[in-house]
Amino acid sequence: MPELDHGVPSEAPPPVPPPLTDVEAVPRRSTAEEARTLLAATNVATLATLSDDGGPWGSMVTYAALPDGSPVLCVSQLAEHGRNLARDARASLVVVDPAPVADPLAAGRVTLAGAVIRPAGEEHAAARAAYLAAVDSGRYYIDYTDFSLYVLRVERVRWVGGYGRMSSTDGADYAAAQADPIGGARGAVDHLNADHADALLAMARSLGGYPDATSARCTAADRYGLDLVVETERGTAPARVGFAEPVADPASLRGATVELTRRARASPAP
Amino acid sequence: MPELDHGVPSEAPPPVPPPLTDVEAVPRRSTAEEARTLLAATNVATLATLSDDGGPWGSMVTYAALPDGSPVLCVSQLAEHGRNLARDARASLVVVDPAPVADPLAAGRVTLAGAVIRPAGEEHAAARAAYLAAVDSGRYYIDYTDFSLYVLRVERVRWVGGYGRMSSTDGADYAAAQADPIGGARGAVDHLNADHADALLAMARSLGGYPDATSARCTAADRYGLDLVVETERGTAPARVGFAEPVADPASLRGATVELTRRARASPAP
Repeated sequence: MPELDHGVPSEAPPPVPPPLTDVEAVPRRSTAEEARTLLAATNVATLATLSDDGGPWGSMVTYAALPDGSPVLCVSQLAEHGRNLARDARASLVVVDPAPVADPLAAGRVTLAGAVIRPAGEEHAAARAAYLAAVDSGRYYIDYTDFSLYVLRVERVRWVGGYGRMSSTDGADYAAAQADPIGGARGAVDHLNADHADALLAMARSLGGYPDATSARCTAADRYGLDLVVETERGTAPARVGFAEPVADPASLRGATVELTRRARASPAP
Repeated sequence: MPELDHGVPSEAPPPVPPPLTDVEAVPRRSTAEEARTLLAATNVATLATLSDDGGPWGSMVTYAALPDGSPVLCVSQLAEHGRNLARDARASLVVVDPAPVADPLAAGRVTLAGAVIRPAGEEHAAARAAYLAAVDSGRYYIDYTDFSLYVLRVERVRWVGGYGRMSSTDGADYAAAQADPIGGARGAVDHLNADHADALLAMARSLGGYPDATSARCTAADRYGLDLVVETERGTAPARVGFAEPVADPASLRGATVELTRRARASPAP
Protein backbone atom coordinates (compact mmCIF):
# COMPACT_ATOMS: atom_id res chain seq x y z
CA MET A 1 0.00 0.00 0.00
CA PRO A 2 2.44 2.67 -1.22
CA GLU A 3 0.31 5.65 -0.23
CA LEU A 4 -0.72 4.36 3.17
CA ASP A 5 1.12 4.29 6.44
CA HIS A 6 -1.12 2.45 8.82
CA GLY A 7 -0.46 2.07 12.52
CA VAL A 8 -0.37 -1.25 14.28
CA PRO A 9 -3.05 -3.65 13.07
CA SER A 10 -5.04 -5.90 15.37
CA GLU A 11 -5.72 -8.76 13.00
CA ALA A 12 -3.71 -8.51 9.81
CA PRO A 13 -4.24 -10.67 6.71
CA PRO A 14 -1.65 -13.48 6.31
CA PRO A 15 1.72 -12.58 4.74
CA VAL A 16 2.13 -12.97 0.97
CA PRO A 17 4.89 -15.33 -0.27
CA PRO A 18 7.28 -13.54 -2.67
CA PRO A 19 7.91 -14.83 -6.23
CA LEU A 20 10.77 -17.33 -6.56
CA THR A 21 11.95 -16.25 -10.02
CA ASP A 22 12.49 -12.94 -11.77
CA VAL A 23 9.30 -11.68 -13.36
CA GLU A 24 9.05 -9.37 -16.33
CA ALA A 25 7.24 -6.17 -15.46
CA VAL A 26 3.78 -6.27 -17.04
CA PRO A 27 2.16 -2.93 -17.78
CA ARG A 28 -1.11 -2.01 -16.09
CA ARG A 29 -3.84 0.39 -17.05
CA SER A 30 -2.91 3.93 -16.04
CA THR A 31 -5.05 5.72 -13.47
CA ALA A 32 -6.74 7.62 -16.27
CA GLU A 33 -7.39 4.40 -18.20
CA GLU A 34 -8.89 2.81 -15.08
CA ALA A 35 -11.14 5.82 -14.64
CA ARG A 36 -12.23 5.86 -18.28
CA THR A 37 -12.90 2.11 -18.16
CA LEU A 38 -15.11 2.46 -15.08
CA LEU A 39 -17.06 5.30 -16.69
CA ALA A 40 -17.68 3.11 -19.73
CA ALA A 41 -18.87 0.15 -17.62
CA THR A 42 -22.21 1.55 -16.42
CA ASN A 43 -24.57 4.52 -16.61
CA VAL A 44 -25.38 4.90 -12.89
CA ALA A 45 -23.41 7.01 -10.45
CA THR A 46 -23.72 9.07 -7.32
CA LEU A 47 -23.44 12.83 -7.67
CA ALA A 48 -22.17 15.07 -4.88
CA THR A 49 -23.32 18.69 -4.97
CA LEU A 50 -23.63 21.58 -2.51
CA SER A 51 -26.92 22.23 -0.74
CA ASP A 52 -28.11 25.78 -0.11
CA ASP A 53 -26.45 25.74 3.31
CA GLY A 54 -23.14 24.67 1.77
CA GLY A 55 -23.44 21.11 3.03
CA PRO A 56 -22.60 18.12 0.82
CA TRP A 57 -25.57 16.47 -0.91
CA GLY A 58 -25.40 13.06 -2.49
CA SER A 59 -27.91 11.69 -5.00
CA MET A 60 -28.16 8.88 -7.51
CA VAL A 61 -27.97 9.89 -11.18
CA THR A 62 -27.70 8.33 -14.58
CA TYR A 63 -25.00 9.63 -16.90
CA ALA A 64 -23.45 9.38 -20.32
CA ALA A 65 -19.89 10.24 -21.35
CA LEU A 66 -18.64 12.44 -24.18
CA PRO A 67 -15.74 11.12 -26.31
CA ASP A 68 -13.26 12.84 -23.96
CA GLY A 69 -14.87 11.11 -20.97
CA SER A 70 -16.68 14.20 -19.65
CA PRO A 71 -19.80 12.97 -17.85
CA VAL A 72 -23.17 14.21 -19.15
CA LEU A 73 -26.01 14.60 -16.65
CA CYS A 74 -29.68 15.35 -17.22
CA VAL A 75 -31.27 16.60 -14.03
CA SER A 76 -34.50 18.31 -13.04
CA GLN A 77 -34.41 21.78 -11.51
CA LEU A 78 -37.22 20.50 -9.29
CA ALA A 79 -34.84 18.02 -7.67
CA GLU A 80 -32.41 19.08 -4.96
CA HIS A 81 -29.34 18.17 -7.02
CA GLY A 82 -30.66 20.22 -9.95
CA ARG A 83 -31.23 23.27 -7.75
CA ASN A 84 -27.79 22.74 -6.25
CA LEU A 85 -26.02 22.68 -9.63
CA ALA A 86 -27.89 25.78 -10.76
CA ARG A 87 -26.62 27.59 -7.64
CA ASP A 88 -23.05 26.22 -7.46
CA ALA A 89 -21.42 24.39 -10.36
CA ARG A 90 -19.01 22.38 -8.22
CA ALA A 91 -19.73 18.67 -8.29
CA SER A 92 -18.15 15.26 -8.07
CA LEU A 93 -19.33 11.99 -9.52
CA VAL A 94 -18.66 8.55 -8.05
CA VAL A 95 -18.78 5.50 -10.30
CA VAL A 96 -18.45 2.03 -8.78
CA ASP A 97 -17.59 -1.04 -10.86
CA PRO A 98 -20.93 -2.79 -11.42
CA ALA A 99 -19.34 -6.27 -11.50
CA PRO A 100 -20.39 -8.19 -8.39
CA VAL A 101 -17.70 -8.68 -5.71
CA ALA A 102 -17.82 -10.53 -2.41
CA ASP A 103 -16.10 -7.68 -0.55
CA PRO A 104 -17.41 -4.25 -1.55
CA LEU A 105 -14.12 -2.57 -0.59
CA ALA A 106 -12.38 -4.71 -3.22
CA ALA A 107 -14.48 -3.07 -5.96
CA GLY A 108 -13.01 -0.51 -8.33
CA ARG A 109 -14.42 2.99 -8.03
CA VAL A 110 -13.54 6.48 -9.11
CA THR A 111 -14.38 10.01 -8.09
CA LEU A 112 -14.35 12.69 -10.79
CA ALA A 113 -14.40 16.19 -9.33
CA GLY A 114 -14.82 19.48 -11.14
CA ALA A 115 -17.53 21.88 -12.14
CA VAL A 116 -20.50 21.48 -14.44
CA ILE A 117 -21.32 23.68 -17.40
CA ARG A 118 -24.50 23.97 -19.50
CA PRO A 119 -23.33 22.80 -22.91
CA ALA A 120 -24.16 24.96 -25.94
CA GLY A 121 -24.17 24.48 -29.70
CA GLU A 122 -22.40 21.37 -30.95
CA GLU A 123 -21.48 20.31 -27.44
CA HIS A 124 -25.17 20.42 -26.46
CA ALA A 125 -26.08 18.27 -29.44
CA ALA A 126 -23.31 15.81 -28.62
CA ALA A 127 -24.29 15.70 -24.93
CA ARG A 128 -27.95 15.16 -25.80
CA ALA A 129 -27.16 12.36 -28.23
CA ALA A 130 -24.78 10.70 -25.78
CA TYR A 131 -27.33 10.87 -22.96
CA LEU A 132 -30.13 9.42 -25.09
CA ALA A 133 -27.83 6.61 -26.24
CA ALA A 134 -26.70 5.78 -22.70
CA VAL A 135 -29.98 6.10 -20.78
CA ASP A 136 -32.98 4.30 -22.27
CA SER A 137 -35.58 6.21 -20.29
CA GLY A 138 -33.98 9.56 -21.09
CA ARG A 139 -36.30 10.11 -24.05
CA TYR A 140 -39.21 10.36 -21.62
CA TYR A 141 -37.86 13.34 -19.68
CA ILE A 142 -34.98 14.95 -21.57
CA ASP A 143 -37.32 17.54 -23.13
CA TYR A 144 -39.31 18.38 -20.03
CA THR A 145 -38.71 22.07 -19.46
CA ASP A 146 -37.47 21.52 -15.92
CA PHE A 147 -34.67 19.19 -17.06
CA SER A 148 -31.24 20.51 -17.99
CA LEU A 149 -28.22 18.89 -19.54
CA TYR A 150 -24.93 19.43 -17.77
CA VAL A 151 -21.40 18.42 -18.69
CA LEU A 152 -18.95 17.87 -15.85
CA ARG A 153 -15.56 19.39 -16.66
CA VAL A 154 -13.30 16.98 -14.82
CA GLU A 155 -10.47 18.64 -12.91
CA ARG A 156 -9.42 15.93 -10.49
CA VAL A 157 -9.62 12.13 -10.62
CA ARG A 158 -9.24 9.79 -7.65
CA TRP A 159 -9.26 6.09 -8.45
CA VAL A 160 -9.38 3.21 -5.98
CA GLY A 161 -8.93 -0.25 -7.46
CA GLY A 162 -9.49 -2.15 -4.23
CA TYR A 163 -7.29 -2.70 -1.20
CA GLY A 164 -3.98 -0.90 -1.61
CA ARG A 165 -4.51 0.09 -5.26
CA MET A 166 -5.25 3.78 -5.57
CA SER A 167 -3.96 6.87 -7.29
CA SER A 168 -4.91 10.28 -8.60
CA THR A 169 -4.63 12.19 -11.82
CA ASP A 170 -5.87 15.37 -13.45
CA GLY A 171 -8.53 16.22 -15.97
CA ALA A 172 -6.19 16.55 -18.96
CA ASP A 173 -4.73 13.07 -18.40
CA TYR A 174 -8.25 11.68 -17.94
CA ALA A 175 -9.48 13.30 -21.16
CA ALA A 176 -6.52 11.99 -23.17
CA ALA A 177 -6.94 8.38 -22.04
CA GLN A 178 -9.16 5.70 -23.52
CA ALA A 179 -11.41 3.16 -21.84
CA ASP A 180 -9.99 -0.35 -21.98
CA PRO A 181 -11.61 -1.89 -25.09
CA ILE A 182 -12.12 -5.20 -23.30
CA GLY A 183 -13.70 -3.58 -20.22
CA GLY A 184 -14.07 -5.92 -17.29
CA ALA A 185 -14.10 -9.07 -19.50
CA ARG A 186 -15.96 -11.03 -16.84
CA GLY A 187 -17.11 -13.64 -19.34
CA ALA A 188 -13.54 -14.34 -20.44
CA VAL A 189 -12.33 -14.49 -16.84
CA ASP A 190 -15.07 -16.95 -15.90
CA HIS A 191 -14.28 -19.06 -18.98
CA LEU A 192 -10.56 -19.21 -18.16
CA ASN A 193 -11.30 -20.31 -14.59
CA ALA A 194 -13.92 -22.86 -15.60
CA ASP A 195 -12.16 -24.49 -18.56
CA HIS A 196 -8.47 -23.53 -18.57
CA ALA A 197 -7.15 -24.04 -15.06
CA ASP A 198 -4.15 -25.89 -16.54
CA ALA A 199 -3.24 -22.92 -18.75
CA LEU A 200 -3.49 -20.52 -15.81
CA LEU A 201 -1.28 -22.79 -13.72
CA ALA A 202 1.33 -22.90 -16.51
CA MET A 203 1.28 -19.08 -16.69
CA ALA A 204 1.72 -18.74 -12.94
CA ARG A 205 4.59 -21.24 -12.87
CA SER A 206 6.66 -20.13 -15.85
CA LEU A 207 5.80 -16.43 -16.32
CA GLY A 208 4.27 -15.34 -13.01
CA GLY A 209 7.19 -16.09 -10.71
CA TYR A 210 5.64 -19.01 -8.84
CA PRO A 211 7.20 -22.28 -10.09
CA ASP A 212 5.83 -23.85 -6.88
CA ALA A 213 2.22 -22.91 -7.73
CA THR A 214 -0.28 -25.71 -7.12
CA SER A 215 -3.20 -23.85 -8.71
CA ALA A 216 -3.99 -20.45 -10.18
CA ARG A 217 -7.18 -18.50 -10.69
CA CYS A 218 -7.72 -15.47 -12.92
CA THR A 219 -9.23 -12.52 -11.03
CA ALA A 220 -9.18 -9.90 -13.77
CA ALA A 221 -8.32 -9.35 -17.41
CA ASP A 222 -7.38 -6.09 -19.06
CA ARG A 223 -5.89 -5.13 -22.39
CA TYR A 224 -2.35 -5.59 -21.04
CA GLY A 225 -2.62 -8.95 -19.29
CA LEU A 226 -4.18 -11.13 -16.63
CA ASP A 227 -4.22 -10.85 -12.85
CA LEU A 228 -3.88 -14.21 -11.13
CA VAL A 229 -4.22 -15.47 -7.59
CA VAL A 230 -1.75 -18.28 -7.07
CA GLU A 231 -1.86 -21.01 -4.42
CA THR A 232 1.47 -22.37 -3.19
CA GLU A 233 2.51 -24.37 -0.14
CA ARG A 234 4.01 -21.08 1.09
CA GLY A 235 0.62 -19.37 0.97
CA THR A 236 -1.52 -17.39 -1.49
CA ALA A 237 -0.05 -14.68 -3.72
CA PRO A 238 -1.10 -12.35 -6.54
CA ALA A 239 0.71 -12.63 -9.87
CA ARG A 240 0.43 -10.88 -13.20
CA VAL A 241 1.14 -12.12 -16.71
CA GLY A 242 1.24 -9.95 -19.81
CA PHE A 243 -0.02 -10.26 -23.35
CA ALA A 244 2.50 -10.00 -26.19
CA GLU A 245 0.87 -6.71 -27.16
CA PRO A 246 -2.11 -4.72 -25.85
CA VAL A 247 -5.45 -6.16 -26.91
CA ALA A 248 -7.19 -3.78 -29.31
CA ASP A 249 -10.75 -5.09 -29.18
CA PRO A 250 -12.84 -7.77 -27.42
CA ALA A 251 -12.55 -10.17 -30.38
CA SER A 252 -8.75 -10.24 -30.02
CA LEU A 253 -8.75 -11.27 -26.35
CA ARG A 254 -9.03 -14.98 -27.09
CA GLY A 255 -6.06 -15.01 -29.48
CA ALA A 256 -3.94 -13.03 -27.02
CA THR A 257 -4.74 -15.52 -24.25
CA VAL A 258 -3.93 -18.49 -26.50
CA GLU A 259 -0.56 -16.89 -27.35
CA LEU A 260 0.10 -16.30 -23.65
CA THR A 261 -0.67 -19.93 -22.85
CA ARG A 262 1.61 -21.15 -25.65
CA ARG A 263 4.41 -18.93 -24.37
CA ALA A 264 3.90 -20.15 -20.81
CA ARG A 265 4.08 -23.79 -21.87
CA ALA A 266 7.12 -23.17 -24.09
CA SER A 267 9.12 -21.46 -21.33
CA PRO A 268 11.63 -23.75 -19.66
CA ALA A 269 10.65 -24.62 -16.13
CA PRO A 270 13.00 -22.57 -13.92
CA MET B 1 -45.98 12.84 -9.65
CA PRO B 2 -47.49 14.98 -6.89
CA GLU B 3 -44.34 17.01 -6.21
CA LEU B 4 -43.45 17.67 -9.82
CA ASP B 5 -44.74 20.14 -12.34
CA HIS B 6 -43.06 19.29 -15.59
CA GLY B 7 -43.35 21.34 -18.75
CA VAL B 8 -44.44 19.89 -22.07
CA PRO B 9 -42.97 16.46 -22.75
CA SER B 10 -41.72 15.32 -26.13
CA GLU B 11 -42.44 11.63 -25.88
CA ALA B 12 -44.58 10.82 -22.86
CA PRO B 13 -45.29 7.29 -21.61
CA PRO B 14 -48.77 5.96 -22.56
CA PRO B 15 -51.72 6.99 -20.35
CA VAL B 16 -52.71 4.73 -17.45
CA PRO B 17 -56.27 3.32 -17.43
CA PRO B 18 -58.10 4.17 -14.17
CA PRO B 19 -59.59 1.45 -11.92
CA LEU B 20 -63.20 0.49 -12.70
CA THR B 21 -64.28 -0.22 -9.12
CA ASP B 22 -63.77 1.43 -5.75
CA VAL B 23 -60.53 0.24 -4.16
CA GLU B 24 -59.82 0.16 -0.46
CA ALA B 25 -56.85 2.32 0.42
CA VAL B 26 -53.91 0.06 1.24
CA PRO B 27 -51.25 1.48 3.54
CA ARG B 28 -47.72 1.89 2.28
CA ARG B 29 -44.43 2.12 4.08
CA SER B 30 -43.85 5.63 5.37
CA THR B 31 -40.90 7.60 4.02
CA ALA B 32 -38.98 6.80 7.19
CA GLU B 33 -39.81 3.11 6.85
CA GLU B 34 -38.63 3.13 3.24
CA ALA B 35 -35.39 4.77 4.31
CA ARG B 36 -34.81 2.34 7.18
CA THR B 37 -35.58 -0.60 4.87
CA LEU B 38 -33.04 0.59 2.30
CA LEU B 39 -30.38 1.06 4.98
CA ALA B 40 -30.99 -2.52 6.14
CA ALA B 41 -30.74 -3.95 2.62
CA THR B 42 -27.00 -3.45 2.03
CA ASN B 43 -23.73 -2.22 3.57
CA VAL B 44 -22.40 -0.16 0.65
CA ALA B 45 -23.15 3.51 0.10
CA THR B 46 -21.74 6.70 -1.31
CA LEU B 47 -20.65 9.38 1.13
CA ALA B 48 -20.65 13.08 0.27
CA THR B 49 -18.28 15.28 2.26
CA LEU B 50 -16.64 18.68 1.84
CA SER B 51 -13.14 18.95 0.37
CA ASP B 52 -10.67 21.51 1.73
CA ASP B 53 -11.78 24.01 -0.91
CA GLY B 54 -15.42 23.57 0.15
CA GLY B 55 -16.32 21.54 -2.92
CA PRO B 56 -18.44 18.39 -2.70
CA TRP B 57 -16.53 15.11 -2.58
CA GLY B 58 -18.16 11.76 -3.21
CA SER B 59 -16.64 8.41 -2.23
CA MET B 60 -17.73 4.81 -1.81
CA VAL B 61 -17.98 3.56 1.77
CA THR B 62 -19.21 0.57 3.71
CA TYR B 63 -21.50 1.21 6.66
CA ALA B 64 -23.43 -0.34 9.49
CA ALA B 65 -26.51 1.04 11.23
CA LEU B 66 -27.18 1.51 14.94
CA PRO B 67 -30.59 0.39 16.28
CA ASP B 68 -31.97 3.92 15.62
CA GLY B 69 -30.78 3.73 12.02
CA SER B 70 -27.82 6.08 12.47
CA PRO B 71 -25.16 5.05 9.94
CA VAL B 72 -21.76 3.99 11.30
CA LEU B 73 -18.70 4.65 9.14
CA CYS B 74 -15.11 3.54 9.60
CA VAL B 75 -12.79 5.69 7.50
CA SER B 76 -9.06 6.31 7.28
CA GLN B 77 -7.68 9.78 7.99
CA LEU B 78 -5.30 9.05 5.12
CA ALA B 79 -8.21 9.02 2.69
CA GLU B 80 -9.75 12.23 1.38
CA HIS B 81 -13.16 11.52 2.90
CA GLY B 82 -11.51 10.88 6.29
CA ARG B 83 -9.62 14.17 6.16
CA ASN B 84 -12.81 15.89 5.04
CA LEU B 85 -14.87 14.58 7.97
CA ALA B 86 -12.13 15.55 10.43
CA ARG B 87 -12.27 19.10 9.05
CA ASP B 88 -16.05 19.51 8.56
CA ALA B 89 -18.55 17.11 10.10
CA ARG B 90 -21.26 17.73 7.50
CA ALA B 91 -21.99 14.69 5.37
CA SER B 92 -24.68 12.88 3.46
CA LEU B 93 -24.97 9.22 2.66
CA VAL B 94 -26.68 7.76 -0.42
CA VAL B 95 -27.96 4.18 -0.32
CA VAL B 96 -29.36 2.60 -3.49
CA ASP B 97 -31.52 -0.53 -3.42
CA PRO B 98 -29.17 -3.36 -4.36
CA ALA B 99 -31.93 -5.38 -6.07
CA PRO B 100 -31.31 -5.43 -9.84
CA VAL B 101 -33.62 -3.28 -11.96
CA ALA B 102 -33.80 -2.83 -15.71
CA ASP B 103 -34.11 0.97 -15.42
CA PRO B 104 -31.74 2.46 -12.82
CA LEU B 105 -34.05 5.45 -12.27
CA ALA B 106 -36.75 3.00 -11.11
CA ALA B 107 -34.55 1.90 -8.21
CA GLY B 108 -35.28 2.99 -4.66
CA ARG B 109 -32.66 5.23 -3.09
CA VAL B 110 -32.30 7.50 -0.11
CA THR B 111 -30.09 10.38 0.95
CA LEU B 112 -29.46 10.85 4.67
CA ALA B 113 -27.94 14.24 5.46
CA GLY B 114 -26.57 15.50 8.73
CA ALA B 115 -23.29 15.69 10.60
CA VAL B 116 -20.99 12.99 11.90
CA ILE B 117 -19.76 12.64 15.46
CA ARG B 118 -16.97 10.51 16.92
CA PRO B 119 -18.90 8.15 19.21
CA ALA B 120 -17.70 7.73 22.80
CA GLY B 121 -18.32 5.23 25.60
CA GLU B 122 -21.24 2.90 25.07
CA GLU B 123 -22.05 4.42 21.71
CA HIS B 124 -18.49 3.72 20.53
CA ALA B 125 -18.80 0.09 21.64
CA ALA B 126 -22.17 -0.23 19.91
CA ALA B 127 -20.86 1.42 16.72
CA ARG B 128 -17.79 -0.82 16.68
CA ALA B 129 -19.85 -3.98 17.19
CA ALA B 130 -22.35 -2.93 14.53
CA TYR B 131 -19.61 -2.16 12.00
CA LEU B 132 -17.81 -5.45 12.59
CA ALA B 133 -21.10 -7.33 12.22
CA ALA B 134 -22.03 -5.52 9.00
CA VAL B 135 -18.67 -5.41 7.20
CA ASP B 136 -16.72 -8.69 7.05
CA SER B 137 -13.39 -7.12 6.19
CA GLY B 138 -13.74 -4.50 8.94
CA ARG B 139 -11.74 -6.62 11.37
CA TYR B 140 -8.67 -6.13 9.20
CA TYR B 141 -8.60 -2.35 9.47
CA ILE B 142 -10.87 -1.17 12.30
CA ASP B 143 -7.93 -1.02 14.74
CA TYR B 144 -5.42 0.65 12.43
CA THR B 145 -4.54 3.91 14.13
CA ASP B 146 -5.48 5.97 11.07
CA PHE B 147 -9.05 4.62 11.01
CA SER B 148 -11.85 6.32 12.94
CA LEU B 149 -15.42 5.36 13.66
CA TYR B 150 -18.05 7.98 12.93
CA VAL B 151 -21.79 8.02 13.53
CA LEU B 152 -23.92 10.11 11.18
CA ARG B 153 -26.57 12.03 13.11
CA VAL B 154 -29.32 12.12 10.51
CA GLU B 155 -31.09 15.46 10.22
CA ARG B 156 -32.75 15.21 6.84
CA VAL B 157 -34.00 12.26 4.77
CA ARG B 158 -34.84 12.36 1.08
CA TRP B 159 -36.29 9.17 -0.36
CA VAL B 160 -36.94 8.40 -4.03
CA GLY B 161 -38.80 5.17 -4.70
CA GLY B 162 -38.60 5.39 -8.48
CA TYR B 163 -40.46 7.51 -11.02
CA GLY B 164 -42.87 9.85 -9.27
CA ARG B 165 -42.48 8.30 -5.80
CA MET B 166 -40.48 10.57 -3.55
CA SER B 167 -40.75 12.34 -0.23
CA SER B 168 -38.77 13.77 2.64
CA THR B 169 -38.73 13.47 6.39
CA ASP B 170 -36.60 14.43 9.37
CA GLY B 171 -34.14 12.65 11.57
CA ALA B 172 -36.53 12.07 14.48
CA ASP B 173 -39.09 10.36 12.24
CA TYR B 174 -36.31 8.29 10.65
CA ALA B 175 -34.96 7.21 14.05
CA ALA B 176 -38.42 6.20 15.31
CA ALA B 177 -39.23 4.02 12.30
CA GLN B 178 -38.35 0.39 11.71
CA ALA B 179 -37.00 -1.38 8.64
CA ASP B 180 -39.62 -3.51 6.92
CA PRO B 181 -39.10 -6.98 8.40
CA ILE B 182 -39.64 -8.59 4.99
CA GLY B 183 -37.20 -6.25 3.21
CA GLY B 184 -37.39 -6.47 -0.55
CA ALA B 185 -38.82 -10.05 -0.52
CA ARG B 186 -37.51 -10.68 -4.04
CA GLY B 187 -37.73 -14.44 -3.60
CA ALA B 188 -41.40 -14.24 -2.66
CA VAL B 189 -42.15 -11.87 -5.54
CA ASP B 190 -40.43 -14.17 -8.03
CA HIS B 191 -42.31 -17.17 -6.62
CA LEU B 192 -45.69 -15.41 -6.92
CA ASN B 193 -45.00 -14.50 -10.54
CA ALA B 194 -43.65 -17.91 -11.48
CA ASP B 195 -46.24 -20.13 -9.77
CA HIS B 196 -49.28 -18.07 -8.76
CA ALA B 197 -50.27 -15.95 -11.76
CA ASP B 198 -53.89 -17.04 -11.22
CA ALA B 199 -53.88 -15.76 -7.63
CA LEU B 200 -52.40 -12.42 -8.71
CA LEU B 201 -55.04 -12.10 -11.43
CA ALA B 202 -57.82 -12.78 -8.90
CA MET B 203 -56.36 -10.09 -6.60
CA ALA B 204 -56.18 -7.55 -9.42
CA ARG B 205 -59.76 -8.27 -10.52
CA SER B 206 -61.60 -8.37 -7.21
CA LEU B 207 -59.50 -6.22 -4.85
CA GLY B 208 -57.27 -4.12 -7.12
CA GLY B 209 -59.95 -2.27 -9.08
CA TYR B 210 -59.39 -3.96 -12.43
CA PRO B 211 -62.18 -6.49 -13.07
CA ASP B 212 -61.14 -6.33 -16.73
CA ALA B 213 -57.58 -7.48 -15.97
CA THR B 214 -56.24 -10.13 -18.34
CA SER B 215 -53.05 -10.75 -16.36
CA ALA B 216 -51.24 -9.38 -13.34
CA ARG B 217 -47.65 -9.44 -12.19
CA CYS B 218 -46.29 -8.65 -8.74
CA THR B 219 -43.57 -5.99 -8.79
CA ALA B 220 -42.95 -5.59 -5.06
CA ALA B 221 -43.99 -6.91 -1.68
CA ASP B 222 -43.81 -5.10 1.63
CA ARG B 223 -45.23 -5.72 5.08
CA TYR B 224 -48.50 -3.99 4.15
CA GLY B 225 -49.29 -5.58 0.79
CA LEU B 226 -48.36 -6.26 -2.81
CA ASP B 227 -47.76 -3.92 -5.74
CA LEU B 228 -49.12 -5.29 -9.01
CA VAL B 229 -48.85 -4.34 -12.64
CA VAL B 230 -52.11 -5.18 -14.37
CA GLU B 231 -52.70 -5.73 -18.08
CA THR B 232 -56.12 -4.78 -19.45
CA GLU B 233 -57.46 -4.14 -22.93
CA ARG B 234 -57.46 -0.47 -21.91
CA GLY B 235 -53.71 -0.56 -21.23
CA THR B 236 -51.31 -1.28 -18.38
CA ALA B 237 -51.93 0.00 -14.85
CA PRO B 238 -50.44 -0.28 -11.37
CA ALA B 239 -52.59 -1.71 -8.59
CA ARG B 240 -52.09 -2.40 -4.92
CA VAL B 241 -53.65 -5.03 -2.67
CA GLY B 242 -53.31 -5.16 1.11
CA PHE B 243 -52.68 -7.86 3.68
CA ALA B 244 -55.24 -8.34 6.45
CA GLU B 245 -52.61 -7.06 8.89
CA PRO B 246 -48.98 -5.99 8.59
CA VAL B 247 -46.58 -8.89 8.24
CA ALA B 248 -44.37 -9.15 11.33
CA ASP B 249 -41.56 -11.34 10.02
CA PRO B 250 -40.43 -13.11 6.84
CA ALA B 251 -41.95 -16.43 7.92
CA SER B 252 -45.44 -14.87 8.04
CA LEU B 253 -45.39 -13.55 4.48
CA ARG B 254 -46.59 -16.80 2.94
CA GLY B 255 -49.64 -17.06 5.25
CA ALA B 256 -50.54 -13.42 4.61
CA THR B 257 -50.40 -13.99 0.84
CA VAL B 258 -52.54 -17.13 1.10
CA GLU B 259 -55.13 -15.18 3.11
CA LEU B 260 -55.07 -12.42 0.51
CA THR B 261 -55.62 -14.93 -2.28
CA ARG B 262 -58.53 -16.55 -0.42
CA ARG B 263 -60.12 -13.14 0.15
CA ALA B 264 -59.66 -12.22 -3.53
CA ARG B 265 -61.33 -15.43 -4.70
CA ALA B 266 -64.16 -15.08 -2.17
CA SER B 267 -65.00 -11.52 -3.18
CA PRO B 268 -67.99 -11.31 -5.51
CA ALA B 269 -66.94 -10.32 -9.02
CA PRO B 270 -68.05 -6.68 -9.35
